[in-house]
Amino acid sequence: MNTQKVTIADVAKRAGVSKGLVSFALNDRPGVSPETRTRILAVAGDLGWKPSLRARSLSTRRSFALGLVVARNPEVLGSDPFFPSFIAGVESILSDRGQALVLSVVPSEEAEIRSYRQLVDDGRVDGVFLTDLRHDDPRIPLLTELGLPAVTLGRPDGPSPFPAVSIDDTPGIAESVAYLARLGHRRIAHIAGSSTMLHGTRRRDAFEAALCTAGLPLGQTIETDFSVAAGSDATRRLLTREDAPTAIVYANDPMAIAGLGVAHELGIRVPDELSITGFDDIDFSRYVYPPLTTVSATPVVWGRAAATTLLALIETGAADDVNLPAARLIIRGSAAAPAHTRKSAT
Amino acid sequence: MNTQKVTIADVAKRAGVSKGLVSFALNDRPGVSPETRTRILAVAGDLGWKPSLRARSLSTRRSFALGLVVARNPEVLGSDPFFPSFIAGVESILSDRGQALVLSVVPSEEAEIRSYRQLVDDGRVDGVFLTDLRHDDPRIPLLTELGLPAVTLGRPDGPSPFPAVSIDDTPGIAESVAYLARLGHRRIAHIAGSSTMLHGTRRRDAFEAALCTAGLPLGQTIETDFSVAAGSDATRRLLTREDAPTAIVYANDPMAIAGLGVAHELGIRVPDELSITGFDDIDFSRYVYPPLTTVSATPVVWGRAAATTLLALIETGAADDVNLPAARLIIRGSAAAPAHTRKSAT
Repeated sequence: MNTQKVTIADVAKRAGVSKGLVSFALNDRPGVSPETRTRILAVAGDLGWKPSLRARSLSTRRSFALGLVVARNPEVLGSDPFFPSFIAGVESILSDRGQALVLSVVPSEEAEIRSYRQLVDDGRVDGVFLTDLRHDDPRIPLLTELGLPAVTLGRPDGPSPFPAVSIDDTPGIAESVAYLARLGHRRIAHIAGSSTMLHGTRRRDAFEAALCTAGLPLGQTIETDFSVAAGSDATRRLLTREDAPTAIVYANDPMAIAGLGVAHELGIRVPDELSITGFDDIDFSRYVYPPLTTVSATPVVWGRAAATTLLALIETGAADDVNLPAARLIIRGSAAAPAHTRKSAT
Repeated sequence: MNTQKVTIADVAKRAGVSKGLVSFALNDRPGVSPETRTRILAVAGDLGWKPSLRARSLSTRRSFALGLVVARNPEVLGSDPFFPSFIAGVESILSDRGQALVLSVVPSEEAEIRSYRQLVDDGRVDGVFLTDLRHDDPRIPLLTELGLPAVTLGRPDGPSPFPAVSIDDTPGIAESVAYLARLGHRRIAHIAGSSTMLHGTRRRDAFEAALCTAGLPLGQTIETDFSVAAGSDATRRLLTREDAPTAIVYANDPMAIAGLGVAHELGIRVPDELSITGFDDIDFSRYVYPPLTTVSATPVVWGRAAATTLLALIETGAADDVNLPAARLIIRGSAAAPAHTRKSAT
């Protein structure tokens, strides 16, 4: 493609040495005298020689690329800004390091497994990011068997040889519940994520523990697949019950925004008659009305930390776990004291 | 990594022929008799031999990967579901064809140019997708010079050697304006995208032409960077003017959803006092209240068509332009007759 590319043969010719010697000098291998090496490097620099990735890959058996395989329904992926933001964070590290990101979006967990095997067979990547951890996640033994380095986003619930880069999301959920309880809410519901994913279960457990701490009875919990559509359906089910909650804690912002839409449609005023909290602090959450009280996650920071850790693992063979600052509650306008409290206060 | 990998040497040993002959047979080169080729292929199949991507790349000078470089602010990227959906469409084609997607997210157009040069220097990809076309787009001569095959999303406004995969978005904007005019709106504004991007200008031109067709005076247009924040600001500016519009046509859904938030905040009822139309039909648009009247784009379909075209171009050296069905208006609840029309009708 680039016909002007300078080759090792060009450098050898200009330096008056063999191609083998140039190759040894450029790859920093022993057997070349310091003077010769210096001269060869100077000639290579003058000519504008650049290492060929393919040749470098063949000699090092590395591809200088990292992989991200995402098993999500395209529609869910499109309405959840987590991945674009996480990827932006990853890319900000990779671009400075001459590394590429190989992305696969697959429709199912089976396709995901095939995808990892294919990446290894093809030698496409030197390591992968494991997101959306599941219970007894089968990808961990698979990647161990394949010998493919990985970092996990969060800590798996089983044994794992891989470093984990984690943000503790439980304090954010606990703060949401405590805040709603302080405002006077007694009937607080949770619209949860998928219980097959660790962070779905973890947020649900944090919700139940926080209710207990606040001395409140166990609230209703509805499990969803984290999608906008499911958030909308679950909200409608909760709000049309006789014992409808006065507050709903959502496991992500897209579902909370859908919930806001359902409340508006049913003529239920937020926050006067219903309080809502989200999770993730996506860009939209500041611009809906009322602006969403939510929990800040920082997917860009998470992406940067995960990329740094994975590159360290690949280069040195070892990397420590990283615990990023916990996600915290951001108070905006979608939660307030429940209507009966306000009435009795006037 | 995969130590059980079957090599050409294994096949040669089992078949009782030289490694060179196995290589010729497996790469379908001339000089091997049909009987020998059949026998070698049978042995290779029995042993579970798979072609090595690296070896295949070296012999074909192909990387069996396509590239997508996105120059967007990570925050804008996170709230615009276009790219995740487009990528899902691309991946649905690539995964069946043993191709990978190399993704770069870069903060600026300068970084984007560097990124294309690096992809070529590294031989990472066989072709790229050009999105967000600009006026006199400098990437087209760059990729031509680099000899890197490409498809453009939409048709550039200058000469281009690359096939274009297009969805005409002007009928959707024209239908939006015509619909609002039929409802009785006379003061219709447009919150436009960036005029450096072709689709920003094209939607704005379509807006102005449609006003003219409807016999309406030129409306106010505010240019933005397509971000949720800019959509929110622009809406506030329009709605706090003395001659505030009764309807706003937005160049994308995220800005329209932000506009809905501003209207709610200002106590302006949608659609009773303000009509709103969006563009793209993102997942959220069905779940906000009122649900957004918008224009259907089909980024998944676009991704599939673009990937198919780019692979054809790479494999055969030529591919035709593709014109996908035009984006059309989807009528939901965010537009209605303006307040004064309704009053005079009662």
